[in-house]
Amino acid sequence: MTEYTLRPIGRVESTLTDRAEAPRQPDEGAPDAWLVFDGQYAPALDGLTPGADVLLLTWLDRADRDTLTVHPRGDTARPLSGVFATRAPDRPNPIGLHVVHILAIDGTRVHVRNLEALDATPIVDVKPLLTPDR
Amino acid sequence: MTEYTLRPIGRVESTLTDRAEAPRQPDEGAPDAWLVFDGQYAPALDGLTPGADVLLLTWLDRADRDTLTVHPRGDTARPLSGVFATRAPDRPNPIGLHVVHILAIDGTRVHVRNLEALDATPIVDVKPLLTPDR
Repeated sequence: MTEYTLRPIGRVESTLTDRAEAPRQPDEGAPDAWLVFDGQYAPALDGLTPGADVLLLTWLDRADRDTLTVHPRGDTARPLSGVFATRAPDRPNPIGLHVVHILAIDGTRVHVRNLEALDATPIVDVKPLLTPDR
Repeated sequence: MTEYTLRPIGRVESTLTDRAEAPRQPDEGAPDAWLVFDGQYAPALDGLTPGADVLLLTWLDRADRDTLTVHPRGDTARPLSGVFATRAPDRPNPIGLHVVHILAIDGTRVHVRNLEALDATPIVDVKPLLTPDR
């Protein structure tokens, strides 16, 4: 099948640097972080506002793309599950999906609450939350 | 910045073929459709079940990647907005995000309700819904 090229639009700046120590979910101790967008995408950020919750899509560049099954949450006592039935980062196309709360915006730098992505993780997209009244 | 390669894991089979006629949201008349996964990904589907709601990630291969601002819903009476504050398909990395209800599973073919993606749209990932009790 045809392949496609993802072009990162920015990077995460975070104090999280070690995958082994990263929280699995944002409510498990993830720190606040900065989303640093490339200057050329400034017009695409227009309309984002502090106080809003948005969906952040990242590319989990340290994930293993050959993994098809995992023990949920790395717990070997739990049976293997297909990765598409889990939120494990290891998967054929390791796109990370994060709900983030915008704390502040400074040009093309966006400060967000509780992000479980590692420092330098590429950002690929931002979208409004999935809600019935989009 | 480093670029990354998305490898489609399957395709949408749908009666929707014309972008101009595609509904903008699944509750605006989107038809049921089939997700046809490549056979090599069968193990990754283990754990998906009929009756479940899941997140489907697609690559909107007919989108314009140079668009940074849009009139929401194509309505020129509405002011231009940055694409990251909208769900418009035209954006630098046109990843489509769809909540789908699984109607049936037949091997690596998954029948889903109300999908607004066009026929032959590449599938890139499937994840559980974002919920507080993941």
